[in-house]
This record gives sequence, C-alpha cells and structure tokens, in this order.
Amino acid sequence: MLLLIPFMAGLISIMAALYFYFYVSKQKIGTPRMEEISDLIRRGAKTYLKIEYRTLAVFVIIISLALYFFIGFNVSLAYIFGSFCSALAGFLGMDIALKANVRTANAAKRGLNKAFSVGFYGGAVTGLAVVGLALMGISVVYYFFPDPKIVLGFSFGASSLALFAKAGGGIFTKTADIGADIVGKIEMNIPEDDPRNPAVIADNVGDNVGDVAGMGADLFDSYVASIVAAMILGSVALKETGIFIPLIISAAGILASIIGIYFVRANKNPSKSLNNGTYITCVIFALFSFIVVYFLNIDIGIFYAIVSGLIAGIIIGLTSDYYTSADKPPTLRTAEVSKAGAAINILTGFSYGSISVVPPLLGIAAATLVSFYFAGLFGIAMSAVGMLAIVGMIISADAYGPIVDNAKGIAEQSRLGKRVIGITDKLDEAGNTAKAITKGFAIGAAGLTVIALLAAYAEIVGIKTVDLLSPLVLSGALIGIAMPPLFSALTILGVGKNAFRMINEIRRQFKEIPGLIKGKAKPDYDKCIDIATKGALKELVLPGVLAIIVPLLVGFTLGKNALGGFLAGSILSGLTFALLMANAGGLWDNAKKYIEEGNLGGKGSEAHKAAVVGDMVGDPFKDTAGPSINTLLTVMSLVSSMFASLIAAYALIH
Amino acid sequence: MLLLIPFMAGLISIMAALYFYFYVSKQKIGTPRMEEISDLIRRGAKTYLKIEYRTLAVFVIIISLALYFFIGFNVSLAYIFGSFCSALAGFLGMDIALKANVRTANAAKRGLNKAFSVGFYGGAVTGLAVVGLALMGISVVYYFFPDPKIVLGFSFGASSLALFAKAGGGIFTKTADIGADIVGKIEMNIPEDDPRNPAVIADNVGDNVGDVAGMGADLFDSYVASIVAAMILGSVALKETGIFIPLIISAAGILASIIGIYFVRANKNPSKSLNNGTYITCVIFALFSFIVVYFLNIDIGIFYAIVSGLIAGIIIGLTSDYYTSADKPPTLRTAEVSKAGAAINILTGFSYGSISVVPPLLGIAAATLVSFYFAGLFGIAMSAVGMLAIVGMIISADAYGPIVDNAKGIAEQSRLGKRVIGITDKLDEAGNTAKAITKGFAIGAAGLTVIALLAAYAEIVGIKTVDLLSPLVLSGALIGIAMPPLFSALTILGVGKNAFRMINEIRRQFKEIPGLIKGKAKPDYDKCIDIATKGALKELVLPGVLAIIVPLLVGFTLGKNALGGFLAGSILSGLTFALLMANAGGLWDNAKKYIEEGNLGGKGSEAHKAAVVGDMVGDPFKDTAGPSINTLLTVMSLVSSMFASLIAAYALIH
Repeated sequence: MLLLIPFMAGLISIMAALYFYFYVSKQKIGTPRMEEISDLIRRGAKTYLKIEYRTLAVFVIIISLALYFFIGFNVSLAYIFGSFCSALAGFLGMDIALKANVRTANAAKRGLNKAFSVGFYGGAVTGLAVVGLALMGISVVYYFFPDPKIVLGFSFGASSLALFAKAGGGIFTKTADIGADIVGKIEMNIPEDDPRNPAVIADNVGDNVGDVAGMGADLFDSYVASIVAAMILGSVALKETGIFIPLIISAAGILASIIGIYFVRANKNPSKSLNNGTYITCVIFALFSFIVVYFLNIDIGIFYAIVSGLIAGIIIGLTSDYYTSADKPPTLRTAEVSKAGAAINILTGFSYGSISVVPPLLGIAAATLVSFYFAGLFGIAMSAVGMLAIVGMIISADAYGPIVDNAKGIAEQSRLGKRVIGITDKLDEAGNTAKAITKGFAIGAAGLTVIALLAAYAEIVGIKTVDLLSPLVLSGALIGIAMPPLFSALTILGVGKNAFRMINEIRRQFKEIPGLIKGKAKPDYDKCIDIATKGALKELVLPGVLAIIVPLLVGFTLGKNALGGFLAGSILSGLTFALLMANAGGLWDNAKKYIEEGNLGGKGSEAHKAAVVGDMVGDPFKDTAGPSINTLLTVMSLVSSMFASLIAAYALIH
Repeated sequence: MLLLIPFMAGLISIMAALYFYFYVSKQKIGTPRMEEISDLIRRGAKTYLKIEYRTLAVFVIIISLALYFFIGFNVSLAYIFGSFCSALAGFLGMDIALKANVRTANAAKRGLNKAFSVGFYGGAVTGLAVVGLALMGISVVYYFFPDPKIVLGFSFGASSLALFAKAGGGIFTKTADIGADIVGKIEMNIPEDDPRNPAVIADNVGDNVGDVAGMGADLFDSYVASIVAAMILGSVALKETGIFIPLIISAAGILASIIGIYFVRANKNPSKSLNNGTYITCVIFALFSFIVVYFLNIDIGIFYAIVSGLIAGIIIGLTSDYYTSADKPPTLRTAEVSKAGAAINILTGFSYGSISVVPPLLGIAAATLVSFYFAGLFGIAMSAVGMLAIVGMIISADAYGPIVDNAKGIAEQSRLGKRVIGITDKLDEAGNTAKAITKGFAIGAAGLTVIALLAAYAEIVGIKTVDLLSPLVLSGALIGIAMPPLFSALTILGVGKNAFRMINEIRRQFKEIPGLIKGKAKPDYDKCIDIATKGALKELVLPGVLAIIVPLLVGFTLGKNALGGFLAGSILSGLTFALLMANAGGLWDNAKKYIEEGNLGGKGSEAHKAAVVGDMVGDPFKDTAGPSINTLLTVMSLVSSMFASLIAAYALIH
C-alpha cells in the first residue's frame, strides 16, 4: 500500500513532464531559417543518439548477461529496466531541449516573460521526467522484488548509462568544441557558430548531449543511488518502515518540486526567478518532510538528517557560485592576472579551484556529523536523500541553461535583431549562474550518496569497519585514490585524441569541398558528428572498463576489507578532484567572458588571449572529467555492492 | 652502548662531508670574471639566509615556548636542537653549492672527469651532512632523554624548518624566475641570465635555495621522521631492541652511502655514473642490513620489510623518470601536441601527471602489504627507514644537479668557450635526470613515512582503528583531504603575488637607473633578493600557520579519532597531489627543452610558445607546491603526535 505513494508521485511527475512537453511543442518555431538550423541540430542529435544507443544496447546486453550468470535473473532484469528508464529520461530531455531552443528564440520576439516560460518549461520536462521515471521505476522494481538488493541492479543500470551519457557526452561535446574553434576561429578566421564550419552542428548538438542528457543522467544516477542506499541502511535500522521512508520522502520532494516549478514566473530578473523557485521548493519540501515524519510517527531525528542534507546542498551550491561568478574576487582576480599571460591565468584559476574544495567538504562533513548524530548511518543516507529530493527543481533550472544558450545561438544565426538577441542574452546569463550552482550541488549530492553507498556496501558485505590502520584497507585506499585522477586523465586525453581526428576532418572538408569557404557549398555536418560520436565511445572504453573491473579485481584479490578501503579512498580523492575541476573550469570560463564584455582590454587583448587558453583548459575539466567522477564513484560502489556476496565468498584474502 | 653505532656513523658521515668540503674548497675559482659572478650569487644567498634565519629564529622561539608550556622542557629543547641541526645542514649545503658551482665551471677546462668530481663531491657534502647531522642528532637526543616521544620534538624541529626551506624557498625561487623572465625576456627582450637584469642574481640564488637547501631539508625531515616513527612502533613491538633497530639500520645506510659515493667515478656518461652509485649503495645497504639482522638475531621479516621499502623507492624513482624523460612517450606526446597550442599542452601534461600517480601508489601499497605481512606495523615503519637509509647517496646525486646547472650558467656568462660549455652542458643533463628520480623518491619515501607516523600517532594517542565508517573519523578525513590542495593553492598564489612585486621592482629599476639597459650601470641586485625573500616569508605565514593550527583544531574539537581520520585523509590526497604536481611539472619542463633542442620547429615556433606556457605552469607545481606537500604532511603528523596526550585529555568530543 505505502508503495503506491512513490509510484503515484512518479506518475504525477511524468504527467506534469508530458504537460510541459506539449506546452512547449505547440509553440511556434518561427522563420524558415530558424527551422532549418533547428532541423540540422535535431538531425545531428539523432545521429548521435542512434549510434550511442546502439552501442549502449550491446553494452547493456553484455553486462546483463554477466549479472544473470554471476548474481541472478532478478538483478539482471532490474539492471535492464534501470538502463531503460535512464535512457528514456535522457531521450525525452534531449528531444524537448531541441524543440524548446528554437521556440524560445521565437518567443523572445514577444518579450522576456514568454521566452523565459518556454525555456524554463522545456527544462522542467527533463527535471520531472528524470525524477518521475526514477521513482516510479524503483517502486515498480520493489513491487515485484521486495528486496533492496535487487533495486541495486536498477541503480547500476542508471549508473552505467550515466557513465556513457556523462563521460561519453563530455568527450563528444569537447571534441566538437575544440575542433570547431581551432580550425574555424584560429586557422580559417571565421566567426564562432558560422554555418560554413563543418563542426558547427556537432558543437550545437554537443551542448545538449553534455549539458541536458549528461547532467540529467548524472542526477538520475545519484538520485536513485541515494534512495537505494537509504533503503538498504533503513532496512537495517528500522526494518520495513526504513525501506519506505526514503521512498515517501522522495515522493514529497517531487511534489515540492512541481509546486516550486509552478511558482517560477519571469519578472525582470530571470536569475532571481530560478533561485526563488529553488528556495520555495526547499521550504515546501522541508514542510512536507516534517508532515511525513510527524504523521508516520517516525523519529524526528530523521527529519533533522533530511534538513541537514538540504542545507549542505545549498551551501555547496552557493560556494560554487562564489568561486565561479564574474562579480566575485576569485574570477575577477584571475581575469586581472591574465594580463601577465596564460601561465598565470592557469595557475591562479587552478589555485582558486583548489581552495574552492574546502567549503563543500566542510559542508559534507557537517551534514555527515549532524545526520549521524540524529539518526545513525541511516541518517547519513537520509541526508543524501534530502539533498537530492528537490532534484526535480534543480534539473529544471539546469536544463533551462543549454536551451536558452542554444536559443541565443539560433537567434544570432537567424538574425532576429538586436532586441530579441538581447533578450536571449539575458536569459542565457541566468542560465549560466544556475548551471554553476547545480554543478556544485550535483557533486555535493553525489558525495553524500557515495558515503551512504559505502555504508551500504559495508552492511551487505558484512564488515564493521573500514580501518585505515589495517594494511589491506590502506592498500585498497591507496589504489582507490588513484582512480579518479586516472579516470579523468583518460577522458581528457580522449578529448585530445578525438579533437585531432575532428581537426583533420574539418581541414579536409575545407580543402576538398569547393566553394565551402565562400559559403557557396554546404559542409558535411554528419561526418563531423559521426567522428565525435564514434571517437567518444571509443575513448570511453578503457576508463569505462576500468571503472567496472578494478573494484572487482581489488575485491577478489585483496578481499572485502581492502575493497572497502578502495571505495573510501576513491570517494575522498574523487570529491576533491570533481570539485576542483568543476569550479576551476567554471571560473576560467567566466573570467574569459568578463574580459570579452570589454574589461581589461576586451576581446583581442593579451589578457583575452590568456583567458582563452584558460577557458580551453577548463572546458574538459568542467564538462568532461570533473562531472564524470560522480558517476565513476557510484558505478564503482554499486559494482562492489552487487558482487559483495561473491567477493565475501571467493576472494583470495579474507 | 648500541647508541654509539648510530652516533659514530653520523660522525663519520659529517667527517666525510667535511673532507669533501675541503676538497672542493681548495679547487681554483678561475678568472676574475668568474669570481665576480660567483661572489654576487654568494652575497645574494647570504642576504637570503640572513633574513630567513632571523625570521626562523623568532618562529623557533615562539614554537619552543609553546612546546615548553604545553608539553614540557625536554620536547622543547629537542625541538630547538632539531631546528638547529636542520638549519646547519641547509647552511652547509648552500655554502658548498655556491663554492662548487664556480669551481666546477673552472674544472671543466680540464675535462669532464675533473669537473664531474668537483660537482658531485660538492653534492656529497650536502648528502652526508644531512644524514650525518640527522642521525647524530637523534642519537644525542635519545642519549639524554631515552624516550622516543621526546625525539618527536627533534623531528618536529626538522619538519618546521623544512616547511620554511621548502615552501619558502620554493616561493623565493619562482618569484625570481618568473619576475626575471617576464620583464627581462618578454618585455625588455634581453637574454636569460643577462647581468643587466636586476633579478638575475636572485634567480641564480633561487636555484640553490630551492633545490639544494630545500631538497636537503625535505629529506632531512623525512629521514628523521621515518626513524622516529620506527622507534615508536619498534618500542611497542620489540621493547628496547625495537628502538635501536632503526638507528642501526640507518647507520648501515650511511656507511653504504659513503661507499656508494666513493664508487661514483666519471666516465663518458655522468648520468650512468650517478645511477651506478645509487645501485651500488642499494646492494651494499641490503647486504649490511642482512648482516645487522643476522648478527643482532632479529626476526628476518624485518629484513624483508627493509628491502621492500628499498625496492618500492626504486620503482617510484623509475616511474618519475619514465613520466618526465624527454625520450619517453608522455613527454614526447606532450611536446608534439604543443603544436595545437598552450591549452592542449597543459591538458596533456596534466593528464599524464595524473596517470603517473598510479605506479607509485601501487608501489607504496605493495611495500605496505609486504612489510606488514612480514613484520607488522613496525615493518611498515622499517620499510620507510629502508627506503630512506640510502638518502645520503640520493641527496648527493640530487644536490649535484643545481651545482652543475649553476656551473653551466657561470661558464656561459664568463664566456669560457664552446668546449667548456659543452662539458658543463653534459654534466647538467645528467643532473636533470637525477633530479627527476630523486623527486619521485622523496615523495614515495615521505609517503611511507607519514603512513608510519599515522600508526605512531594512533599508538601514542591510544586509538586502535581509523575507521572511515565512523562519522567523526570520516569528517576528519573530509577536512584532511582538503589540506593539501588548500596548502598548495596558497603557495602558488603566493608565488603569483610575490612575482608581481618583483616585476614592478624590475620595471622600476630599468626606468629609474640611467644606462642600465645599455649595460653602463649596474642594477640593484640586492633589492630584488630582498623582495623575493621577504615576500616568500610573508606568503608563507598563512599556509604555515594552517599546517600547525588545523590539526590541533580538529583534534581539540572533534577528538582524537577525527584527528586520525584527518591525518589519513591528508596523506591520501597529499600523495596524489604531490606526485601529480611533481611529475607534471617535470614533464612540461622537459617537453619545452625537447622543443628547444630543435625538434618540432624549435625555439620561437608555435609549439615552443605553447610549451613555454606549460613550463611556467609546471614550475610552481614542481618546485613550490608539489614538494612542500611532503613537509606539510609530516608537520601535521608530528604536531598531532606531540599534542596527542593533551588532545586525548581535553578534546571536546571523545
């Protein structure tokens, strides 16, 4: 019976998503020129999705067979279902983003408010589809297999999809971005987003692939993982009640998000509207949680745990904002020292990025302490659930970003005039701020989630401590801390290699297609998308395989205790690298934009050249490597938990 | 009685150092022009040392008073003595390096072999002075206060000095380097090392300050800390015998180093000579250790522990070599992609630096496992001792580097002719390879040492586990992992700020001193040295204070268990950052040099410009931030151990 609540909440969320989907779809597209550009991006995205889903299908089949043979049919089935739900959410998000961008541009003709609504409701489709499919999916799995350990399979499905979507999408988008810039802007001297550039469509597709589908899959992953971890720890602490608490609290979060989304109305300041929506959601969610705790007669400590997660999430988001906003000292200082060259820009940005890890880590530490104090290990898991419960609203604000960014590009390429472009510009700015906050939030939420997953792993595998004074655990930890830097290095090098392939292709087209540079012939956009896609998937093989194999290797050779150390080590270094890379990347980006607005010499100045280098370094930091680390951590934790009983039984060392 | 062995070994080492000191001193200086340049550098170094030691004296007095009031007279006294020994070793090393450089240049007139001997014996003075003063110092302290916990004070003295020498020296040298380059090479367009540049002497001084005094103090620090940790854990495992084993093994290492140094003879390949010396030392040391273990009738497991540390040290050194050598794929690939600009150079170098952390971490993990398997926690400490026992030879080969580097500079500035410059060039190349290996070795050794120190802390404070499933410990770890990135960011930003002061001063001199640019007037070298020195000390205040205060803060508020987590967390992230920064920095440096040798377009090409940016980013990575992390870790561990009983008694949370 209680299972009906999360199921219904998920269903309502999906229905609300569909409502917004149709609202956006029925808006007008605008001029034929706009339709043409939008069609090109849509077609490109389809090419990408087709190749990606085909590869994914093979991958999912292999993994599900392995799960079937080693663990059992139920987990394997749950895994397939989890992959499917995550893929569906990603597909819906991409689809609506590609419809909303051109419609937002067109709506901008009718003013800021209308355009904001179209853009934001486009984002809300992704947000609500993600949480709706996730919570409904979990409810369905648990209905058929009432055992949280089977739900782990669902969560692993979501995670492995997220690894593709986030890291693969990250490699795709930066391949296209760097390739387009180096040949287009630097070698051929044509402006950004110029339709003569063969990689321009790949670049536009990339924004959606990385920021909409990637971020959505990432938070889908964390959201599900936090709920599963809480279900496992809850079943230990409070038997069946403990299993339902995270589900019902998440249901409350979904309803709060829908109400929050309803209250987001454009006024003169779109950035403020988005933030207000988030704050309203937080307050309503806290209220709902209290009501749930009160009426279900649950220990009030769990309410405190939830709220501590919520507050930590906000602190982390605000920190990211401080360290990446162009009106705050870190970014301003970095922009200023750019006058002395690229090296100083890099060093300063990297340093501020390093410092920016301190407040979030303190926030996570505080949330851990408070929630444990009030509600034990289950409390830690519930603080992660509390942080992620409002993710419907968070993703809505985040997915709004790439939609209005694309809208701006379309408005420029379709020459919609100064007023309209000005409006999309304003919308875009708000999107950037929202994005910085969301990124910090996503990492913080993943941090609390993987801590809860570590506790869940210990519970399942039957270890009472992860004691670093034990040499086996310590050795595991030493291997674990190496994983995040290794993983991010492989993805960054992947971007580099793939970008070179792209550069060669773009050069080839400019050389071999007569009249292309004069605008008299059309480039072969599809070929570039093909290279970006296939290259991204190829470069993903090694890091992806490592993410699954290394924990198993550590577990089966050094044993379950060492694997505990491995997970703990990877969490500790992963959080540091993820925060550093995300924030440094955002800071470099905004320092460059600050200079481009005419400060410190503006475009073309020495400071600008230096800041461009910083931005190019920051791009794969913040869009490829940094955010994929979350997913790496959950994948490794889930693999370990799923194979826990096998490891406990068959490891070389016990 | 047994105490006489380490004492005598220390004494022999110091006497050997003095022998080489006089050998080098009695060599001829050469032409008056050479004497003039050498005098300028010597005077500059004296200015630096005077200001540094004055500040240090104040610092040492404050800390020793604090130790006296909170812990006791004996520890305070040991602390002062430890600072003194470390400072003396640093002073001797600097002094001889500044004598040996010009004499090596002069000896190069008489051929490679002679010059190599002068340079290497100059380095041997530092190497032997460091280990001699350290081991003799420990013996003296333990003779008067037969309690390993008092020896902690001696170790803390060495560590806090190392923090100044390494981080302060690192800021100094990069301030001068960057300042001289930006105004001299870029703005005024005069060559490197041009005597008209007001910062040129500061730059030369900086090489010695950072590489000789800094590396010496760093390894002095690790060397002492490893011995103290082993004494503490040994006293638990084997009572008094356990206290003497590390001292006697270290004595064996000193004798092996002296023999190894004796066998270093120049032939056509100086790089090979240095490596042979290291390998011979390793073999002899292993032999000696076996004899000690056999005749003292100690468990053979301890011998295996020692050897595992030795082997891990070599593996780590070779890894650094692989990831930073110009004839290996990582550096070559980085040089090649530089054609596509600075951003790709940075991303590629950073990625290989990230990957380079994997083998050393695996090596440390393996050494931990093997040594624990054979000899328990004491075995881990002994593997650190085993790794560091040969440090006399390691430092000799390392300190050789800056001496011949300076010799090359002096030969060029004194126009000693192509043949002589060619010889110093060859000597310098060998120095660079040795340096890369030593840096990796130093970090690996510090890694094993701080792991042993963590075990020693647990022993003293009376905790049986450092269990990351405990929220207090986990919170401590989350704060701990933030320390290394925070510390390195503050030192890098310090370099930036101080470099700006330097740049302004250099510009001022070129503007206000008439005839300077035409070479008709002399610049005010001292003013630049003054700025570099005072600025470095100023920028060091915040990170230095944090290194001492934060562990105490964590300990006294969150308690001894959280502090254990804090130390463990800082070790895990510290090792990662230190290895990444040191190796990436070395790689960028050599990628630039590879291009400057005429590859990929050579000097002035686009690839070269990009590689210069990479090198400038890498400089503070490898010379300021990366190597100081070692010291940060030992300082924090020692502070925690010294205040352990106070923390156990008075912490807010127990």
